[in-house]
Amino acid sequence: MASEVFNGRLISVRVDDQGLELVAHPPAVVMVALEESGDVWLVRSRRPVPEQTLVEVPAGLIDPGESPAEAARRELHEECGLEAERWEELASAYSSPGFCDERVHVYLATGLRHVGGEEPAGAVEEKFPAGIEEALRLCSANLQSLAALLLASRRLARGGGAGHPG
Amino acid sequence: MASEVFNGRLISVRVDDQGLELVAHPPAVVMVALEESGDVWLVRSRRPVPEQTLVEVPAGLIDPGESPAEAARRELHEECGLEAERWEELASAYSSPGFCDERVHVYLATGLRHVGGEEPAGAVEEKFPAGIEEALRLCSANLQSLAALLLASRRLARGGGAGHPG
Repeated sequence: MASEVFNGRLISVRVDDQGLELVAHPPAVVMVALEESGDVWLVRSRRPVPEQTLVEVPAGLIDPGESPAEAARRELHEECGLEAERWEELASAYSSPGFCDERVHVYLATGLRHVGGEEPAGAVEEKFPAGIEEALRLCSANLQSLAALLLASRRLARGGGAGHPG
Repeated sequence: MASEVFNGRLISVRVDDQGLELVAHPPAVVMVALEESGDVWLVRSRRPVPEQTLVEVPAGLIDPGESPAEAARRELHEECGLEAERWEELASAYSSPGFCDERVHVYLATGLRHVGGEEPAGAVEEKFPAGIEEALRLCSANLQSLAALLLASRRLARGGGAGHPG
């Protein structure tokens, strides 16, 4: 038995019978959008935690009733004005399974087309391409972005499959 | 201005003036403990979220007053009965910066010595070594473990420095 101590707009918190505080959070998508040049798209977003802007790979929450793949397509369009011909799920994993059920679906998107949405949406202040090494350096404060970039890098080093560019 | 809606043993939750729900959570350490053979140490732990056991790299929360490096040494000893001669911080990043301030310090530990603690501590049910590829497969549900393993793998591929085994 767990008792709910907070039920908010996005998250809820319960305390289980061992006193552990557990957060329920919607699942999320994180996308590595890879150009044929090898560059990936990054966004600079305002983040309430840690109250500063962070450079990240595109990401967002899955809306109720939406599949992870649908959310990934929607968020990449909203944040970067991009559509992708090929999508490959690289991981589906918990961001912090000690206390939170947020599941993160990591995608590699290739075969990119620029379809508009030139003004970044929502909390995104800027979007720009960068090489993978620079992206790893710029995204160093976001572990989800680092994981996504490293998963994509490993996927590309292995070659073959739908995720391979060009 | 943000109003606090829950203040628990480990986490607290506040709602900011835009209605965003923000979780304060202690920082954590995640360790890749690398044997000279190339194997890394994994643990199987009970996790209240998602209510099952997960295979992970050793990890834990930083206690109040403890440095990240101290916590890393303590947790590796507690969970795996290991001490390490060389420690290298591979990343210090937020696990989910959209809503939570949990900062995760990722370490590569080499020059391992087995000093006891043969009975895994706390929620850890089992500990065992595995090759990096198998570890990536076994840890596929934990994004922090995946990030740590991939950061370590990349670090080793580059060679040199204190983190290089042997």
